[in-house]
Amino acid sequence: MNIYVDGMGGDNAPYEIVKGAVMAAKDFNKKIHIIGPTDIINDELKKYEFESGLIEVVNATEVITNDDEPTKVIRRKKDSSMIVGINRVKEDNESIFISAGSTGALLAAGTLMVGRIKGIQRPALTVMLPSRRGITLLLDVGANVDCKASYLVQFGQMASIYAEEVLGIKNPRVGIINIGTEEGKGNELTKEASGLLKEANINFVGNIESRDLVEGYADVIVCDGFTGNIMLKLIEGLSAYIFDNLKTAMTSDTRSKIGAVMLKPALKSFKKKFDYKETGGAPLLGVKAGIIKAHGSSDHRAFYNAIKQGIIFSEKNILRLISNKIVEI
Amino acid sequence: MNIYVDGMGGDNAPYEIVKGAVMAAKDFNKKIHIIGPTDIINDELKKYEFESGLIEVVNATEVITNDDEPTKVIRRKKDSSMIVGINRVKEDNESIFISAGSTGALLAAGTLMVGRIKGIQRPALTVMLPSRRGITLLLDVGANVDCKASYLVQFGQMASIYAEEVLGIKNPRVGIINIGTEEGKGNELTKEASGLLKEANINFVGNIESRDLVEGYADVIVCDGFTGNIMLKLIEGLSAYIFDNLKTAMTSDTRSKIGAVMLKPALKSFKKKFDYKETGGAPLLGVKAGIIKAHGSSDHRAFYNAIKQGIIFSEKNILRLISNKIVEI
Repeated sequence: MNIYVDGMGGDNAPYEIVKGAVMAAKDFNKKIHIIGPTDIINDELKKYEFESGLIEVVNATEVITNDDEPTKVIRRKKDSSMIVGINRVKEDNESIFISAGSTGALLAAGTLMVGRIKGIQRPALTVMLPSRRGITLLLDVGANVDCKASYLVQFGQMASIYAEEVLGIKNPRVGIINIGTEEGKGNELTKEASGLLKEANINFVGNIESRDLVEGYADVIVCDGFTGNIMLKLIEGLSAYIFDNLKTAMTSDTRSKIGAVMLKPALKSFKKKFDYKETGGAPLLGVKAGIIKAHGSSDHRAFYNAIKQGIIFSEKNILRLISNKIVEI
Repeated sequence: MNIYVDGMGGDNAPYEIVKGAVMAAKDFNKKIHIIGPTDIINDELKKYEFESGLIEVVNATEVITNDDEPTKVIRRKKDSSMIVGINRVKEDNESIFISAGSTGALLAAGTLMVGRIKGIQRPALTVMLPSRRGITLLLDVGANVDCKASYLVQFGQMASIYAEEVLGIKNPRVGIINIGTEEGKGNELTKEASGLLKEANINFVGNIESRDLVEGYADVIVCDGFTGNIMLKLIEGLSAYIFDNLKTAMTSDTRSKIGAVMLKPALKSFKKKFDYKETGGAPLLGVKAGIIKAHGSSDHRAFYNAIKQGIIFSEKNILRLISNKIVEI
């Protein structure tokens, strides 16, 4: 197994990425390949002590920026850390690639360059959401804006395997996002998908309303990529709106400012619940390679966790498990 | 114009409803019909002083509960305050009916009993969301889970009229919920609808990402009823989750509790932003009657505002304006 890391992806690259990679290499005693401009990565590596041979730098001269259009990166930035990384795992099924870079670019490159596991109709982008009971794996959050019911069944099957094998959730409960909890509710897509999910070889628990997304009623929640993307961005926007307003309230006058200082420690742990650093990464499921997307704002701890998930992904041979379990529909 | 009020609808009925109705009747000097069991409503009315003739009680013996299935209410609870009210406005175009009762029941009764304005393909359920710039009218939030692109155009046209005439927003900006801001983004439905919306006689401003729902980039935002319902319930659930966690943080230890007390006044105004009492009601647009849905947890102030909107709805003759402006597609 080769572990490849996108040294230049994410808001905090290369510093936090390299730091997390070195930590992971030492803790798991695995060699990690960090991809990026050799001089930049080596400059970062000088800050740490580790056994030689534990880290290898793979040179990639280009860097993907926010201005790059995701679908054009493949041809225009062939020597970027992300494209070099995808090319590596493409050729080697047991390897994994972890990146905190552009989701759109990773999705485009992952699906277009690598290709799908045999029998998989569409790959799906997953995300891990904090919930009242732990973690919920939500997919698809943007890879497929128009879905057939059968895609959703495969999303549920793939994510079940991931949740069980990588996250250690026994017999994961799979739900479908819908507008009501009762059977028979929904639009054409969810009604058809629910019927199929009931027949599939997974622990299907039925409809989940979006208001219960964070309740933890399911470990895996499937939806079409349009709905998933809308939900994900709504969570982002609404959280920011609430926190902004909270901040304004806390600095509105002297009395409030004093109260805010008193509350600081408690609020810190409260805010921690809403950050993704502990969760690590989320896989691009259905492609013929181990590709883990770490959150764009990952610090070294988050990236370390994403690497850890990648290692389990490879060790448990998730690609083979998916390939074996999937029902061709 | 006759104003009918569902005296038994909502979490705080009949107390807050009757209180809001009496306030509105006096302030606007309009006769208001309160529908409900005569004895219960009269008991409430005894608490207030008002000119005789300003309030009339319309007897309705049954009450709709949360256990009632929305679509079955029409036949099974014919003498409920809601069904009696809908029957009244059904027969009289200039009248209005305001209810804080079950959204599902109001939607079912409103669409099935009243019928659509000629030329309108589908009625839509709207909701008013607080935003950074004021208020955003979002529709459809659940009346039509499967939509054609042309429905969304009519939603935009109808809500434009409502926003301009009832809410006083000049030349309201109409957006469509989508997964990206760039033109050409989206699923089949939003791509087609965007094209049609550009050609429609409204101030179309393009795609709105769900993360920007509360930014106030548009006064009216259209979407299919599945997506709208999902967003609405997600806002509900996520807000509750964040506030619950905030509360836990604030009571976690003595220091935090003291801080929370200091912050109380500021947090009160912060929480006010997220309640719907000031906004009042939202119309069921496209049906051949003036039906306003007040928020289920309306207090007298919220219900008063919903009645006010209903009065403007009738005075400005929104039904005729919709009928005249709508483009048959």
